[in-house]
Amino acid sequence: MTDVDEAAGAIEAMRPPVIVLVETQMGENIGAAARAMANFGLRELRLVKPRDGWPNEKARAAASRGDAIIDEVRLFDTVEAAIGDLELVFATTARPHDIAKEVESPAVAAQSLRVAAEAGVATGVLFGREKWGLTSDEVGLADRIVTIPVDPTFASLNIAQAVIIVAYEWRRQVVGDPAWTPFTEKERSPQASKADVLAFFDHLEASLDAVEFFRPASKRPVMVRNLRQIFQKARLSEQEVRTLRGVIAALERRPTRLDQARAELERREQTERDPQ
Amino acid sequence: MTDVDEAAGAIEAMRPPVIVLVETQMGENIGAAARAMANFGLRELRLVKPRDGWPNEKARAAASRGDAIIDEVRLFDTVEAAIGDLELVFATTARPHDIAKEVESPAVAAQSLRVAAEAGVATGVLFGREKWGLTSDEVGLADRIVTIPVDPTFASLNIAQAVIIVAYEWRRQVVGDPAWTPFTEKERSPQASKADVLAFFDHLEASLDAVEFFRPASKRPVMVRNLRQIFQKARLSEQEVRTLRGVIAALERRPTRLDQARAELERREQTERDPQ
Repeated sequence: MTDVDEAAGAIEAMRPPVIVLVETQMGENIGAAARAMANFGLRELRLVKPRDGWPNEKARAAASRGDAIIDEVRLFDTVEAAIGDLELVFATTARPHDIAKEVESPAVAAQSLRVAAEAGVATGVLFGREKWGLTSDEVGLADRIVTIPVDPTFASLNIAQAVIIVAYEWRRQVVGDPAWTPFTEKERSPQASKADVLAFFDHLEASLDAVEFFRPASKRPVMVRNLRQIFQKARLSEQEVRTLRGVIAALERRPTRLDQARAELERREQTERDPQ
Repeated sequence: MTDVDEAAGAIEAMRPPVIVLVETQMGENIGAAARAMANFGLRELRLVKPRDGWPNEKARAAASRGDAIIDEVRLFDTVEAAIGDLELVFATTARPHDIAKEVESPAVAAQSLRVAAEAGVATGVLFGREKWGLTSDEVGLADRIVTIPVDPTFASLNIAQAVIIVAYEWRRQVVGDPAWTPFTEKERSPQASKADVLAFFDHLEASLDAVEFFRPASKRPVMVRNLRQIFQKARLSEQEVRTLRGVIAALERRPTRLDQARAELERREQTERDPQ
């Protein structure tokens, strides 16, 4: 079983939070929210009085492959009805409401939601209108507040962008490891042994000696040290050492400037000895 | 100085990552990316050959108040030119490329970017085309890979949504505390003293005794205990205790069923004594 399979299994075992969009105006935003939900493994979308009615073709178009979520959307007339069967509800707000509720960041809220979901608690998150969010009465219906740490000088967050961040943090909780990625780096060739690396250095330095690279001779030790450091930082694999040795071998076969100068000298000497 | 001001100061001191969008097709996506950047305090947007040219009115419209970023967009013909002055570049990819590079989650990549930015290193993040992302050659130009932990069964992430997650994680790094929110819960009235709470319990229970709520009498102790537990869990503030006592006082003044029954009895007795 791969890590991905395990993560998928962990998701199946929990009911993800229900996303409740209150009086959303733009079908595109409903669709983008559904797409974000699908990206991060959320399933249930509820709408309270969407402005343009339902179904909404713009929502379906924007949902892309999140159309399974669009198919299962549930419609409600009031926020109370939409959250009636839920037990832990967060309200997303961009500004403080005059309500003494706990305020959590998306990361902390996702943790609270995951702990609740693991205990079989039905959870949900409320998102307000594009222009002005949730009313204080609607926020009052929720148990807690989740707010996204936006730049205070530009706090207006698109509703679908707010959904994606909550959904992303939910998935980070589900996959468990904050450093988790869906794939790992390409398997590297085994690390080169020190002997291999030193043999490569010898090869390189001999090659450079041959072209009188290290001049003046008194500077050679420090030049060698600096050169070796470049390759040491790269933590070379066996394959990479082979590649580099191939590079040097190839370069050695290419006539060096010294070779060219010697060849020219020889040609002239030949010419002088055997004038036409 | 508030926490928000401090966070803003911390942002000013660092150069946020440059966002590079490669051959983006939809102006709306460029605009949504600019808006997300503004939300989370990023500033520099570079475009490599946007399909519909530049400037693009759809991008400006979708940017909302992120138009300052749109005004400063820089255009490039190649990815090489777009990242030429940067020193640490991440490529975002949704699938493994056949390249041995370190792969980091958005949270870990944001940490790497923050550490680099603090050291004065110029950083950037590459985002690919809507349909098929970055080419392997383009990924090859980057130092590392960042990938977003999407649901593997629905991995197609909108480009602007990928930007918002990277930008959000950058801001989480800048504000420092994963639990940071732009505002804290409304300041609570001071916690009620135990004496206040017990006086409230006495008031409540006396009021309930008056309406013969606790029946049978043998059950009274357990009923009282359960009732008190409800309020104890709420960790009442002084103000909340005052509110609850007001509620009970108000209810006491309202005629109870017993009062009504007694009044009815009195009325009948009166009628019997003084028949018309």
